[in-house]
Amino acid sequence: MPSVSRKGQNMPESPIRKLVPFAEKAYKENKTVYHLNIGQPDIKTPQIAMDAVAMHSLDVLAYSRSEGSEDYRKKIANYYKKNDIHVTADEIIVTTGGSEALLFAMGSVADIGDEIIIPEPFYANYNGFATASGVNIVPVISKIEDNFALPPISEFEKLITPKTKAILICNPGNPTGYLYSKEEIQTLAAIVKKHDLFLIADEVYREFTYDGYEHYSILQEESMAEYGIIIDSVSKRYSMCGARIGCLVSKNKDIIKTALKFAQARLSPPTFAQIASEAALDTPQSYFDEVISEYKDRRDTLISHLQKIPGVKVGLPKGAFYCIVELPVKNSDAFAQWLLEKFDHKGETIMVAPAAGFYSSPGVGLNQVRIAYVLKKESLIKAVEILRIALEQYED
Amino acid sequence: MPSVSRKGQNMPESPIRKLVPFAEKAYKENKTVYHLNIGQPDIKTPQIAMDAVAMHSLDVLAYSRSEGSEDYRKKIANYYKKNDIHVTADEIIVTTGGSEALLFAMGSVADIGDEIIIPEPFYANYNGFATASGVNIVPVISKIEDNFALPPISEFEKLITPKTKAILICNPGNPTGYLYSKEEIQTLAAIVKKHDLFLIADEVYREFTYDGYEHYSILQEESMAEYGIIIDSVSKRYSMCGARIGCLVSKNKDIIKTALKFAQARLSPPTFAQIASEAALDTPQSYFDEVISEYKDRRDTLISHLQKIPGVKVGLPKGAFYCIVELPVKNSDAFAQWLLEKFDHKGETIMVAPAAGFYSSPGVGLNQVRIAYVLKKESLIKAVEILRIALEQYED
Repeated sequence: MPSVSRKGQNMPESPIRKLVPFAEKAYKENKTVYHLNIGQPDIKTPQIAMDAVAMHSLDVLAYSRSEGSEDYRKKIANYYKKNDIHVTADEIIVTTGGSEALLFAMGSVADIGDEIIIPEPFYANYNGFATASGVNIVPVISKIEDNFALPPISEFEKLITPKTKAILICNPGNPTGYLYSKEEIQTLAAIVKKHDLFLIADEVYREFTYDGYEHYSILQEESMAEYGIIIDSVSKRYSMCGARIGCLVSKNKDIIKTALKFAQARLSPPTFAQIASEAALDTPQSYFDEVISEYKDRRDTLISHLQKIPGVKVGLPKGAFYCIVELPVKNSDAFAQWLLEKFDHKGETIMVAPAAGFYSSPGVGLNQVRIAYVLKKESLIKAVEILRIALEQYED
Repeated sequence: MPSVSRKGQNMPESPIRKLVPFAEKAYKENKTVYHLNIGQPDIKTPQIAMDAVAMHSLDVLAYSRSEGSEDYRKKIANYYKKNDIHVTADEIIVTTGGSEALLFAMGSVADIGDEIIIPEPFYANYNGFATASGVNIVPVISKIEDNFALPPISEFEKLITPKTKAILICNPGNPTGYLYSKEEIQTLAAIVKKHDLFLIADEVYREFTYDGYEHYSILQEESMAEYGIIIDSVSKRYSMCGARIGCLVSKNKDIIKTALKFAQARLSPPTFAQIASEAALDTPQSYFDEVISEYKDRRDTLISHLQKIPGVKVGLPKGAFYCIVELPVKNSDAFAQWLLEKFDHKGETIMVAPAAGFYSSPGVGLNQVRIAYVLKKESLIKAVEILRIALEQYED
């Protein structure tokens, strides 16, 4: 019998995948499970997007252009303009989710065995795309004590080798909620220019910033025109995770030309989802105002309640809708499993994402979990109370 | 300035991409262009699929499961059962088009530098997925003189090395229209068993067979349970190319487990398209009867008219909706460009796909083109007449 590839064996599993059977067991026992583990917002998708699909008048569901429809790309360029990011439709390739944009970006900048430096903790699926592409991720550790701010230049420079092709950031960050300042972006710009690297920025949470902080894109930094690649997605912006529409944006013509070849091989992004995504661009500002205010409220609630639990440490996220929480446990994997398998408080428990899966350095983040605040405030309060009680009962 | 990867440079362009500027020039000159170059059917998508999307009642366009919704996979398993392919929902992973199923299959069976043997001419995008995956395609030449039948075992065995991990076929074939017989599938089964390889079969044209020939799937061959991987797609079956829904099917648990990890990294297939694809499974048989009869009619028309042109050689395709045509020209690339750039007959011309892009052996197929019969019969007749006149005028 033939065996699967080593690459396939090395493909990482999602950090919560091994918890799924325990979650299923909990459901069977009729426990209520508060899902703090996922990035699936409960926020309604803008009606304008849903209606556009319901009112479609297609006879033949045909391929679109590999780079996405021209109308849609023009409208995306206009959206960026409003965000002070000046690109043309030709500098945008529509992708099947931010996921595919990441895959195209990695394939376009790095060969097999090349290295990409990523501040960790980072979005766990970067590991999967790197493994699939044969690229090695070199982590630079950012710390909960520093609220996951950009590590000093010297830490990056220690890691740069002839095989380094890019630095990849997620801004605002999943799983940290950290928002890089303009100064930090400029620091990164200086490093990549000095060492001739690409700067890839996953900016899918652009709109989700709090406390008056504003997102500063790598392509607002003029010196990054030839170096910068934005990864974007409609998933979180419009609560349209199931659309699977994102884009790759670069002013570097070689990058666009190369990414387009990857795009051509897979023919086209999904048509219905492009209809929804194009319509979503007309979502009124009031939608975002409400959503951001809702998330800010949830964040404040979550953080203030978490901070009251003895031994719990949490940064104050400035963006996205995640935070990394340090718990008074040795192994958050075992704790997360215990929460589902052995524990309940009046028939209720919680599911969290153990943070080790967000680090590629072994042994780091073992006492941390990622919490997503995509639940209503009342549920978050209940969930944190359950966490408090669970920590009292848990024996490492 | 950093430069793009060698892999990105090596990514092949679509065989017709370089013709696109010449097609655009032809449009500007108000020429009518008959598109014989594309696999985008003009057939209407089943109403039941379009209506299901129009009547969606989603509030939140959420992620689906990475492997596709359970309901949809159960219905797919039932579809296969009707085709005498006996698999369960757990043996199916829903993918973003057949394209993604191919990418997952290559990643699951082959490591960087490994080899996959493919009878050529083959679907050009196999080259793209192989380059993206770091896999080398080893072609085994099938010949127009043999109507592109399976090359003899000895030809395969000459090419098998310790790096060979799989044989990949497209059945019925794009671009050849060849349908492998049960005996040929059994021959392939014997080779892969003997040499411990996977057998990957792209069966997206399963329904498109003519003259009473029936498709025989690799998974109808019981001995292939652990060896076989089916690549499938709704694109051609229901004229839903823009849905971007396909699937990977295998009874080998390790393959499913591995492919699922690739699927998890990209989160989920598109939700609206899954709704359409699930509904499409209820398409009445009468739809297919009409479609197949329409294609058969088109094929017969196309072939009979082509055969009347002096110096033109064409096999009789038994399936799919393509054929490879040998023309009395030295270089079909130059001819295809000339057709768009320099030629017209009463303001009309044709666009064909030069066949060299469907071969990976250099210098093979230079005098061939691929013609897709996805146009109405009247248009096909006109298009072949234009080809006849063009060949009379063309000077190599």
